[in-house]
Amino acid sequence: MNDRVTLAHGNGGRYMRELIDDVFVAALGHAAPDARCDAAALPPVDGELMITTDGFTVQPLEFPGGDLGSLAANGSINDLAVAGAQVRWLSLGVILEEGLELACLRRLVASFAAAVQAAGARVVAGDTKVVPRGHGGGAYFNVTGVGVQRRRDIDIARVAPGDAVLVSGPVGDHGIAVLLARQDFDLRGPARSDCAAVLELCRALWPLPGLRFMRDPTRGGLATVAHEIAQGAGVSIRLREPDLPVRDATRSVCEMLGYDPLYLACEGRVVAVVSAAQAPEALRRWRALEAGRGAALIGSVGADMPQVILETAIGGERVLDELEDDPLPRIC
Amino acid sequence: MNDRVTLAHGNGGRYMRELIDDVFVAALGHAAPDARCDAAALPPVDGELMITTDGFTVQPLEFPGGDLGSLAANGSINDLAVAGAQVRWLSLGVILEEGLELACLRRLVASFAAAVQAAGARVVAGDTKVVPRGHGGGAYFNVTGVGVQRRRDIDIARVAPGDAVLVSGPVGDHGIAVLLARQDFDLRGPARSDCAAVLELCRALWPLPGLRFMRDPTRGGLATVAHEIAQGAGVSIRLREPDLPVRDATRSVCEMLGYDPLYLACEGRVVAVVSAAQAPEALRRWRALEAGRGAALIGSVGADMPQVILETAIGGERVLDELEDDPLPRIC
Repeated sequence: MNDRVTLAHGNGGRYMRELIDDVFVAALGHAAPDARCDAAALPPVDGELMITTDGFTVQPLEFPGGDLGSLAANGSINDLAVAGAQVRWLSLGVILEEGLELACLRRLVASFAAAVQAAGARVVAGDTKVVPRGHGGGAYFNVTGVGVQRRRDIDIARVAPGDAVLVSGPVGDHGIAVLLARQDFDLRGPARSDCAAVLELCRALWPLPGLRFMRDPTRGGLATVAHEIAQGAGVSIRLREPDLPVRDATRSVCEMLGYDPLYLACEGRVVAVVSAAQAPEALRRWRALEAGRGAALIGSVGADMPQVILETAIGGERVLDELEDDPLPRIC
Repeated sequence: MNDRVTLAHGNGGRYMRELIDDVFVAALGHAAPDARCDAAALPPVDGELMITTDGFTVQPLEFPGGDLGSLAANGSINDLAVAGAQVRWLSLGVILEEGLELACLRRLVASFAAAVQAAGARVVAGDTKVVPRGHGGGAYFNVTGVGVQRRRDIDIARVAPGDAVLVSGPVGDHGIAVLLARQDFDLRGPARSDCAAVLELCRALWPLPGLRFMRDPTRGGLATVAHEIAQGAGVSIRLREPDLPVRDATRSVCEMLGYDPLYLACEGRVVAVVSAAQAPEALRRWRALEAGRGAALIGSVGADMPQVILETAIGGERVLDELEDDPLPRIC
């Protein structure tokens, strides 16, 4: 077998079968991206099912702290977790570009498999397509996750004035790590993506009756999630700038390049809105976890018109605009 | 709004929200590719669930008889149908290339929506990514389908010597239609893709106890499905060349360009293996349907070593090789 992906790997014949066996079945188990099965049966479960889908097009494919594979698995695991569901099954559709090194593909699939296994999930369906050189970014992964709902009523409409806004850790690390990994800039730093499953963080809050809503701040970052909550619940979100956790390394790269860390993607953080009464308990639960050591209470929900207001360190206020143009093209 | 897709349409902010509302929610209903919802609940069903996933990268995006949208919807509907399941829910993940005309995207999404509606299914989750110009083929769609199993034991392992092999209509039309639509060749013909749902064809056979196995001959065509059955069941497949339905227009283009229609993709056909006793009933049921008017009994299952044998019109035999190199790059 060639050491790079060729168009023949996508034609439905022997080369494709060998690629599937050699790369996907080896890492993901028998049922994984398998051309030999049109559809797979899902075992019965006790509970309501939830579904999510996400495409992953990150460039470069590998970066400090993660890669396309871990990003894709955790992205779907996380979308289910913030909605109150425990991931059970995943499908993986890959679009490969002719010329991709098979060794790289193997690493991406191994990362994907490790994240799936860590979450206790299973890959039950898959698909492989190959596009000609120049028609893809090496590899795109598309993941659909199915999970079982373990906490109901996580609902943006339940967010109300007086609630507290929390974030599980420093923001912007993923955006900066990917930016630097692109080598568009001559900067090297200790920036690592925060790419991780947030399942444990979410599970810690599911039992709290005061939990209103959670979302992972991926594309568009924390500011965009704040806007979504403001618009979805018809409230204002007030964030306190001094309380927003941003790593020094991330902040200094942002200052040099003119980015605002509040608009940069995270891939292992959660924003939660919790009743004021249960905010301390939520924070305590998060900080008790390794993944939540940097958690912080960062703001509150107000009764003003839907907008996001940043309260600055010197006592001022400014309105955070909704993202329009692209602050950082194509990091997810 | 610009009349083409821009990178800002993929950044998670206002442009993306407007694109989703304007293009996807308008065509697919409120729950469709919706950034405002991390995961959607699936209503309870009476029956076992089945899941399938598929990526669609056809070039060009529109061709006589179909387009990326109808191909993507029907592809997933069909993968469930041949496995014995009635489609219920679909997710749609789109990867758009900067510069794609929004008018084209609207047509693709409208086609997708029409096929979903015709099958009685619903889009419950979605995702939109934008990649820079030169990193995608205009648009790639990835669809995951979830359905309810209505017929059990459609299983390649149940295929046995003596069974009959049927196909629901002429083969190779999709492959030729896409090839000509690319204008790589200076040929114009009446070739139209057979792109369609095969749900009705499959439903017609689900009640037959003698139904062993079905598959839709997409990438790699009829010959590849025959190989998959031969290898999966450990049998030989004997196909009778004079009985294989191929349209004259498709055959003549194949002869001019040196393609074998048996290796070309179909997107609205079914290959079924049925007990010899029930083959006439299966054929009668298919031919009673508009989509199955061209159905034919094309061969039988033998006890030889796993291989595919073509019995020619003049009484000869030749072994059909498994597809290795690409007969027709990137048609699906």
